[in-house]
Amino acid sequence: MSVTETLIPDYSLPDCNRRVLLTERPEAIPQAGHFAIDEVVPESVPDKHIRVRNVYLSVDPAQRGWAADMNNYSPPVPLGTVMRALGVGVVVESRHPDIAVGDCVYGWLGWQDYAVVSPDQLLYHIGKPRAPLSCYGGILGMNGVTAYLGLTKLGAPKAGETVLVSTAAGAVGSVVGQVARNAGCRTVGLTGSDQKLALCRERFGYDVAINYKSGDLAGRLAAALPEGCNVYFDNVGGTILDTALRNMAVAGRVIQCGTASIASWDPPPTGLRNEREVLTRRLSWQGFVVFDHMADYGLAVEALEKSLLAGELYYEEDIDQGIECAPGAIQALYAGENLGKKLIFIG
Amino acid sequence: MSVTETLIPDYSLPDCNRRVLLTERPEAIPQAGHFAIDEVVPESVPDKHIRVRNVYLSVDPAQRGWAADMNNYSPPVPLGTVMRALGVGVVVESRHPDIAVGDCVYGWLGWQDYAVVSPDQLLYHIGKPRAPLSCYGGILGMNGVTAYLGLTKLGAPKAGETVLVSTAAGAVGSVVGQVARNAGCRTVGLTGSDQKLALCRERFGYDVAINYKSGDLAGRLAAALPEGCNVYFDNVGGTILDTALRNMAVAGRVIQCGTASIASWDPPPTGLRNEREVLTRRLSWQGFVVFDHMADYGLAVEALEKSLLAGELYYEEDIDQGIECAPGAIQALYAGENLGKKLIFIG
Repeated sequence: MSVTETLIPDYSLPDCNRRVLLTERPEAIPQAGHFAIDEVVPESVPDKHIRVRNVYLSVDPAQRGWAADMNNYSPPVPLGTVMRALGVGVVVESRHPDIAVGDCVYGWLGWQDYAVVSPDQLLYHIGKPRAPLSCYGGILGMNGVTAYLGLTKLGAPKAGETVLVSTAAGAVGSVVGQVARNAGCRTVGLTGSDQKLALCRERFGYDVAINYKSGDLAGRLAAALPEGCNVYFDNVGGTILDTALRNMAVAGRVIQCGTASIASWDPPPTGLRNEREVLTRRLSWQGFVVFDHMADYGLAVEALEKSLLAGELYYEEDIDQGIECAPGAIQALYAGENLGKKLIFIG
Repeated sequence: MSVTETLIPDYSLPDCNRRVLLTERPEAIPQAGHFAIDEVVPESVPDKHIRVRNVYLSVDPAQRGWAADMNNYSPPVPLGTVMRALGVGVVVESRHPDIAVGDCVYGWLGWQDYAVVSPDQLLYHIGKPRAPLSCYGGILGMNGVTAYLGLTKLGAPKAGETVLVSTAAGAVGSVVGQVARNAGCRTVGLTGSDQKLALCRERFGYDVAINYKSGDLAGRLAAALPEGCNVYFDNVGGTILDTALRNMAVAGRVIQCGTASIASWDPPPTGLRNEREVLTRRLSWQGFVVFDHMADYGLAVEALEKSLLAGELYYEEDIDQGIECAPGAIQALYAGENLGKKLIFIG
């Protein structure tokens, strides 16, 4: 999409708040039936807090983990409460000196019409948007920042190196591929449909794009990586990861950012043993969770904004309309039905 | 063992050289039958080369990989040639201006009585030893340097952190445990016999030592690591690694230095999938091969010498007598029969 002027609607104070509640604990990928929508009278705004009219609700793979009752890097969402979600919105009421009514914000707004939050629940105080508002929920939001910081801090790609990306057309992966290409790297993308393959080649600028569902991944990956892979940004885990590890160059870096190909961790899945690859190739295999790197969040948004406004970053969005789309959105995401960042417009 | 004065025998020039040749390609762990011993007239010494009378031949787990015909981080030893090995010896003939007759050296001397080498085949020019000569083949040799650099460069343990070591009583592991303890860490050691367990507790100063063959490793490891493990120095891989990964603290570092528990990689063994541990615990799992770090070799020897001479490092040696012990030495090493660094004295 191209960058166009942003129009912020003029929102009034609410008389009711629609909320998407987690009502049942999913065993694997959350389905529509695990949620319910209710309507409540909006809560009041305490001191040092703001009321936000949500405009874009975010749908993210990590929500699977937040909904599950398993040891994870975030505590599970309590049953009967608003589903944890990121969102972009406009401040309609402020009892905080640093945030004005009309400012745009991005953060933990939840799947609901209105959120009452304190600044520590915000990831980024947008103020007046310099790019389309939806971008701050995608390429300039957690997805873009994850891509940028994961790649640059853990992958540290050098010009001329080869960077491999799984879910290459996804909300995170497509940014990884483009940031790597803009840094002078050769980029190889793995994706799961011919439509996304075309996007990878024509829009996201990958030097090679591979549909991993078309068979002989090992052979095609080896052919695409004749000198091995220097940086692998992995969002999927599983057998794709195993194959990638066996094509890493010596001193290669593997960034574990997601495990989307594994439908369930209970019972624990098995696969090829990978410690010999780590040893003989002297890999550095690191887990990346963006919340460990919040001190660098603003710098990452600024770098991405600059590239975006210079026309060096292309992005896709898949925007559903209406809060009633939220309950089924995570299952649709895992089914790979979306092209680009999945958001729900409720403004 | 305590540090005693080193006596260097007075060696004469050779009239014959006994050599241990690799004669058959092992499928898994090299056995005595894969080698043969011959005697040849010694070669002459080219310009810029030296002739070394080998005193201690080293026996190392990595020799399995060097003998095998598989993709590895060193090329395989050609059949019919001297088995690749480290050794400590005395220079008996020198055509190099920087190395004097009588100097002690450590390096790629091979399993043979005499080696003709150039300086680039040496790992360390000992000169006049400051510690027992055998130490330069063990705690002050590749094993000690591997422990020191792997732990300090990749593990970067801070005082108060917990460091877990597998093959805790081994030639590498016992140094890892002691360097970590001397740096103010809490140390937990995994070993495979009650005799080694006693060594770990009484000599190598581990805070907790566990015999992994005594059952319920998961339960005992969890009990020993109530706040998780910050640094795991792994020499074994396999199910012990899987169990350790599930006891890592957030931001833990895993150093993959060996995979001794895996008897064969053909067919490829399978096990628990570990990418979720890497992600959710934000681990850094790195392969360590000391030969990538040769610029730091001298500094490591000096640091270890200083600790050793100050009485802060204990070491065990298992020294066989006579070159005829070499062919069966690797299988004995993998059977865990040795206590401490395995060397063969042939002086």
